[in-house]
Amino acid sequence: MKRKLILDVDTGTDDAVAIMLAALHEDLDLVGITTVNGNAEVHYCTDNSLRVLDWIGKPEIPVHEGCFKPLVRNDFPVPRSKGDLTEKIHGKHLPLPETSLKAQEQHAIEYLVETYRNTTDPITLVPTAPLTNIAAALAVEPKLVDLIPEVVIMGGGHDVGNITPSAEFNIWADPEAAHAVFNAGFEKLTLVPLDATHKALITATQCRQFQQLGTPAGTAMADCTAHRIGVHDKIQRMDIEHSAPVHDAVCVAYLIQPEVITLERYPVDIETQGALTVGRTVVDKAHRGTRPDNCNVAFDANAALFVDIMMKTFAKTA
Amino acid sequence: MKRKLILDVDTGTDDAVAIMLAALHEDLDLVGITTVNGNAEVHYCTDNSLRVLDWIGKPEIPVHEGCFKPLVRNDFPVPRSKGDLTEKIHGKHLPLPETSLKAQEQHAIEYLVETYRNTTDPITLVPTAPLTNIAAALAVEPKLVDLIPEVVIMGGGHDVGNITPSAEFNIWADPEAAHAVFNAGFEKLTLVPLDATHKALITATQCRQFQQLGTPAGTAMADCTAHRIGVHDKIQRMDIEHSAPVHDAVCVAYLIQPEVITLERYPVDIETQGALTVGRTVVDKAHRGTRPDNCNVAFDANAALFVDIMMKTFAKTA
Amino acid sequence: MKRKLILDVDTGTDDAVAIMLAALHEDLDLVGITTVNGNAEVHYCTDNSLRVLDWIGKPEIPVHEGCFKPLVRNDFPVPRSKGDLTEKIHGKHLPLPETSLKAQEQHAIEYLVETYRNTTDPITLVPTAPLTNIAAALAVEPKLVDLIPEVVIMGGGHDVGNITPSAEFNIWADPEAAHAVFNAGFEKLTLVPLDATHKALITATQCRQFQQLGTPAGTAMADCTAHRIGVHDKIQRMDIEHSAPVHDAVCVAYLIQPEVITLERYPVDIETQGALTVGRTVVDKAHRGTRPDNCNVAFDANAALFVDIMMKTFAKTA
Amino acid sequence: MKRKLILDVDTGTDDAVAIMLAALHEDLDLVGITTVNGNAEVHYCTDNSLRVLDWIGKPEIPVHEGCFKPLVRNDFPVPRSKGDLTEKIHGKHLPLPETSLKAQEQHAIEYLVETYRNTTDPITLVPTAPLTNIAAALAVEPKLVDLIPEVVIMGGGHDVGNITPSAEFNIWADPEAAHAVFNAGFEKLTLVPLDATHKALITATQCRQFQQLGTPAGTAMADCTAHRIGVHDKIQRMDIEHSAPVHDAVCVAYLIQPEVITLERYPVDIETQGALTVGRTVVDKAHRGTRPDNCNVAFDANAALFVDIMMKTFAKTA
Repeated sequence: MKRKLILDVDTGTDDAVAIMLAALHEDLDLVGITTVNGNAEVHYCTDNSLRVLDWIGKPEIPVHEGCFKPLVRNDFPVPRSKGDLTEKIHGKHLPLPETSLKAQEQHAIEYLVETYRNTTDPITLVPTAPLTNIAAALAVEPKLVDLIPEVVIMGGGHDVGNITPSAEFNIWADPEAAHAVFNAGFEKLTLVPLDATHKALITATQCRQFQQLGTPAGTAMADCTAHRIGVHDKIQRMDIEHSAPVHDAVCVAYLIQPEVITLERYPVDIETQGALTVGRTVVDKAHRGTRPDNCNVAFDANAALFVDIMMKTFAKTA
Repeated sequence: MKRKLILDVDTGTDDAVAIMLAALHEDLDLVGITTVNGNAEVHYCTDNSLRVLDWIGKPEIPVHEGCFKPLVRNDFPVPRSKGDLTEKIHGKHLPLPETSLKAQEQHAIEYLVETYRNTTDPITLVPTAPLTNIAAALAVEPKLVDLIPEVVIMGGGHDVGNITPSAEFNIWADPEAAHAVFNAGFEKLTLVPLDATHKALITATQCRQFQQLGTPAGTAMADCTAHRIGVHDKIQRMDIEHSAPVHDAVCVAYLIQPEVITLERYPVDIETQGALTVGRTVVDKAHRGTRPDNCNVAFDANAALFVDIMMKTFAKTA
Repeated sequence: MKRKLILDVDTGTDDAVAIMLAALHEDLDLVGITTVNGNAEVHYCTDNSLRVLDWIGKPEIPVHEGCFKPLVRNDFPVPRSKGDLTEKIHGKHLPLPETSLKAQEQHAIEYLVETYRNTTDPITLVPTAPLTNIAAALAVEPKLVDLIPEVVIMGGGHDVGNITPSAEFNIWADPEAAHAVFNAGFEKLTLVPLDATHKALITATQCRQFQQLGTPAGTAMADCTAHRIGVHDKIQRMDIEHSAPVHDAVCVAYLIQPEVITLERYPVDIETQGALTVGRTVVDKAHRGTRPDNCNVAFDANAALFVDIMMKTFAKTA
Repeated sequence: MKRKLILDVDTGTDDAVAIMLAALHEDLDLVGITTVNGNAEVHYCTDNSLRVLDWIGKPEIPVHEGCFKPLVRNDFPVPRSKGDLTEKIHGKHLPLPETSLKAQEQHAIEYLVETYRNTTDPITLVPTAPLTNIAAALAVEPKLVDLIPEVVIMGGGHDVGNITPSAEFNIWADPEAAHAVFNAGFEKLTLVPLDATHKALITATQCRQFQQLGTPAGTAMADCTAHRIGVHDKIQRMDIEHSAPVHDAVCVAYLIQPEVITLERYPVDIETQGALTVGRTVVDKAHRGTRPDNCNVAFDANAALFVDIMMKTFAKTA
């Protein structure tokens, strides 16, 4: 049986790749997509998600638009208007044709609550965006903790951050929502932070190989990732040249082949208050605090396997 | 036409009086009650609300149970288990007989969202409890800002707090939810803080007059308030002897006769982060900040009018 | 015997009045002046203090320059460069002639430590500025807690702030220093907040009376206060027209006649961390916290007496 | 010429080793020792430092006692009385005989200020303790920033903390002081965090070798470190068995042979406010913030070289 999942995204170039991988891989059944304020304003994220589905011939997958602002704050810890933030990396629109597909009327939170209440099959939840929708859904239906068999989150960074020295964008963008989710009591909570995704880089050479696949997914993958490499070369000041992480897709690849990341169990909590560290994923690597282990954290990834999974998936014609 | 309202409560002795006043006054139509974690754990608050409705012969008013914990935190800023907090004041059970009434199945948040989406009449929302349900409902349905004509909140304290020197219990108990609600953009947001409710005290003498009404509401009012007076004499170290505020009921009395409080328009925001001041309602009395006025705040109340409204209402037999 | 005092100032128009009152009143012996970063950069505060002493013919009073930045932070909670802050109210230079007087070489902190270690007479300490010097001196010599018989601080605000809705400038400008001072354990700690100083306003009419005294102090008082009234009319949006508080001088007047303010004993602590409330003086007016009373707080002042003390003092020719 | 240094310590078993190395190595001239509240109350730290000097025959090195509490707070972020904190690791008294040596009368802060003002030779400052003395000295004499040629701090942890998941004890114990020091503008600021010291472990076998040296320093080194290994085996839950870091001594070894650590230049700042992260050394490893590089940070150490330096130094008879 295919593994069912729901993607919660703020599409975004790497969310786009995650959507394609989830929608196209034969072992996965992408039940639905929920969108949230993050890389761009939520209506752009919704439109981008629909463009991806249209482009790869999967118009039947429902998209539900979710929250347009963080759970508690009116904006990010540094307001979107005060900095370029994510727009330099993602732009507002993906490099894909416009679509006539429409999102569902039902709000993402209500879709999540209703879907999990009514499903008989287990559905993995994969948030690769700020956790606003998930935290709000937990307030409406606390039983989600039992109804969701596994939550696989792209977010956080232990060794480096990407929005501040201490924090990764998804967690930082709604630290209170993240705090609620990490403390909700999910039995299986999996975190894929920058520490892992920065070890699963896509190179410019591989980009060309994706291009040469000649499939819609292959060319979209190539375009999105080439854009990311260009940005990383300019902005991110990473030591790596001509390559870039495709963070969100690592979570989906993990559902296909768990070995794509290496997991260790740690206590993880979210800083909501620091002057310098707001939005930090506090991983108690030495197990010295008083909290129990609540999260499987990926500190390593297998880049070759990650690329291989995507190359094979995107090679297929629909 | 009667003024419709929904009460969001954590019943609680003063919530009980608010419920009775809202359910029994001829000018009001108490459409429904939602409950939330606060003075006691939410299931006690639900049970207490049902006891009140049963006792005063209003079993038809629906009660919807809401959130069992704050929106972001797993507990209050000081965990319930670490202190006596509100239990000394309210106890778990009201001094009213057990009831066989049951709460509705639908969660409070979903009830709020559905009711406001579908109503054709304006329904005032009166939260006299931590604002968890309201903040979560706003995440699910941001249009509530337009759908709710007025929000009347019992909470906050400018001159004194009651749970800390800086904060009143309802706001302190879920400061992030309060932050979200006060920043949501409601056009008509009315705050009844301790500054007003402490000027609408009920005396021991008035308690006896309520008792002598001989009605269910009169005796319940007397019992609840006598309990409050006893507690205030012992714990609160207020200068006032043999009297007590009945905070939540002031909000309902204001709906009946606005003159029961004196309102002034100020910028109000909620502190979520202070080491000493978490949960403080920051009222910019000198209008010196950069925020626009967003809230009508009551700094004064008319005790005689307040008592008169309740005495007349509770005197009537159903 | 004259009452000895040291003034710790960030002169400033109201500090100037405090210096004149302390230097000229027959019952007081102004032993020395220490300056600190505050209303203006410290070197301006030093120069302004010297101008005052020169103008009123008291060149023998030593001035020691102190800290040029807050104890912990590199700047105020909102950097001086980001706003006009205090400069609109005080300007850099007082409206007094330039002076050839020089400050002492010894740093203010060392002067304070040495003076208190060696004095045989009690010397009251009167900080009317950010508490940086005092907190640092306490680190060098913790025995100051016993050596200083009374500390009289102008700072804080309970009902309103003047730099933010929650905070008064002196405390806000170095909240960590204030925290250290209020928690140091002084037996006699007296706080004169805005709540009192706003009740000791000087009117435009009184300004003209000071002018008519024809003395250097009288004209300086008139010029400084006229400037303050002008600013308050424009900026402060107070309800009062054509009058202004002269905060710092109230502390000195209290040393001359204690009845100029009304004191009550409360627990007082300083918020160093709030997002909205940093620098707030948290006065536990209901005595509901767990801290002991540590501070005498003035919530009321006698404006007529205050003016009378100054009028008589400034009328005298040196 | 010998390299002059002052050690600022909270002795402590690893401070003891640092003192011995600094006092005994032929290339170093330990000008003086200042003590501060930290591993134990300051008077124990002073006594322990004197015991070490007496034991190794260096009674002429002056010890100046410093601050008995953090700069701003009255106690650590978690009060000493609330947990075992450092006492399990260090105890109050070192395992060395009592001494009749006495500390100097002059306070550590005044000693630091006076010494640096008057010296003609450069004196490296090596704080291996909470930074209270140093921050206070900077308030008294801001020119220390120019007068001190290099500050070498043992403190902080990027990958793991030792007092919380996010923080190392020295920085956590007085985060405001650390904030002031890291932002003071020292041209040469060197940080030796746990990341480096955990790579310079001393094994039980090496302990026995130190014991066999037969010198006072050798046996003290063996006793202190054996105690540390015992504690680490029990408490620290490190993966390493039968070995322990001797943090503070790494700073001194670096003065002897810089290659003992590997330094990289980063922006470093101190979190003073987080709910989970207070006292964290925020190292911007990706250089993504807006702060300039202000600190040389050691992320690696050469354990063999470190041991070799100490073995040779402690082998010599005085």
